[in-house]
Amino acid sequence: MSVELLENERLDDLHRKGYQIIQNPKMFCFGMDAVLLTAFAKVGQEDKVLDMGSGNGVIPLLIQARYEPQSVTGLEIQEANVDMSRRSIQLNQVDDQVKIIHGDIKEAESLLPLSSFDVVTCNPPYMDAGKGLRNAHDAKYIARHEVLCTLEDVVRSASKLTAVGGKFCMVHRPHRLVDIITLLRAYKMEPKRLRMVHSDVSSEANMVLIEAVRHGGPFLKVEEPLIIYRAPNVYTDEVKGLYYD
Amino acid sequence: MSVELLENERLDDLHRKGYQIIQNPKMFCFGMDAVLLTAFAKVGQEDKVLDMGSGNGVIPLLIQARYEPQSVTGLEIQEANVDMSRRSIQLNQVDDQVKIIHGDIKEAESLLPLSSFDVVTCNPPYMDAGKGLRNAHDAKYIARHEVLCTLEDVVRSASKLTAVGGKFCMVHRPHRLVDIITLLRAYKMEPKRLRMVHSDVSSEANMVLIEAVRHGGPFLKVEEPLIIYRAPNVYTDEVKGLYYD
Repeated sequence: MSVELLENERLDDLHRKGYQIIQNPKMFCFGMDAVLLTAFAKVGQEDKVLDMGSGNGVIPLLIQARYEPQSVTGLEIQEANVDMSRRSIQLNQVDDQVKIIHGDIKEAESLLPLSSFDVVTCNPPYMDAGKGLRNAHDAKYIARHEVLCTLEDVVRSASKLTAVGGKFCMVHRPHRLVDIITLLRAYKMEPKRLRMVHSDVSSEANMVLIEAVRHGGPFLKVEEPLIIYRAPNVYTDEVKGLYYD
Repeated sequence: MSVELLENERLDDLHRKGYQIIQNPKMFCFGMDAVLLTAFAKVGQEDKVLDMGSGNGVIPLLIQARYEPQSVTGLEIQEANVDMSRRSIQLNQVDDQVKIIHGDIKEAESLLPLSSFDVVTCNPPYMDAGKGLRNAHDAKYIARHEVLCTLEDVVRSASKLTAVGGKFCMVHRPHRLVDIITLLRAYKMEPKRLRMVHSDVSSEANMVLIEAVRHGGPFLKVEEPLIIYRAPNVYTDEVKGLYYD
């Protein structure tokens, strides 16, 4: 299968089932957070999955490659990303399983069926919109900052679209964990599973993975820490296993 | 200095400055949680410290031994514990620095000066009152279950007694972390520092240490995991350092 690459685009390997992804370094390239979130989400084969803010489609493609669920839907606001991710889907010949909807997370409940997804994932912008604002139309800036949607927008939409008893999985920065937990509970998305990600075992957490269950009862499990490096520039076996088949 | 020991009481070494503590195994003996909380709390020499629910006085004595702050006050509801901890204080000759008040956490604001403590610590009962209720007058049961005070009582009283900008440090079980975080924020005690405690690096967390600052701004730091064992029955160097001078 061949694919048309536009200016600045390149083709990267996803290291699973031979999947490839089109990326544009001028816009956004996926990072470890997408890989960790995909592994953390534990999707079942019967599940309908939604990725909110799917960007270039990396999480929908990784979920399809790793779990082969019933269906994967991505919701993405930036048209260039929607176009790029649709071409990646064609390239990997998963058009029947993976769809991208062009739209705004804030309007998700009018675009997608309510209470219908077994698993909802999101790798949202981590940073406040207010800080260091340069250009709200810049694609990289939109991916990283809360310009087009806030954490509360993300949680509210997830609470509308996740099935009762379904899971919402997010990767974020630890410094926002208090906001994350209080918002999740306020929207009846009970945090059930939490995993801290540390560069090495003696450094503070730099990412947090959290799973909430819609209308779940209170009981949080804090999993073993996820350690990235076992020596300088050497991944732990767990992280190697997440990156490569 | 000699001390009178009552029936079932024994004298244990605190491994700091030669301090000893009277314990009654029929009531409650201190565990690792008290040692970890003392180290986590980072008390300054000018600080006035309050330990809520001080039991046999282990945390006030460990704080005095480790930090020598301006003053340490313990608040304890069970009369037998008050008596026992006062005898331990005499034994260690720290009567001028460490005081125990006999009273209820729920009435703390009428017993102690409001907004006056730089550091407030608490190792509260971890378990719901409803579960496996046997005898609400049993001293061990009171120490472990929310019979006489709930988590919300603890947070409410801490929010009244901690100075603005002062710290409240607690050790608890990870499964209650969502309750802890939402209550702290509701009472304007902003969680600022969090540390997960794991038996070993590949097991889930079994304790959580959390520091909140009264009227603090939102920004949580998740510290490196605290690992207890580096091999079966062998403490990590960090834990050895916490237990022994």
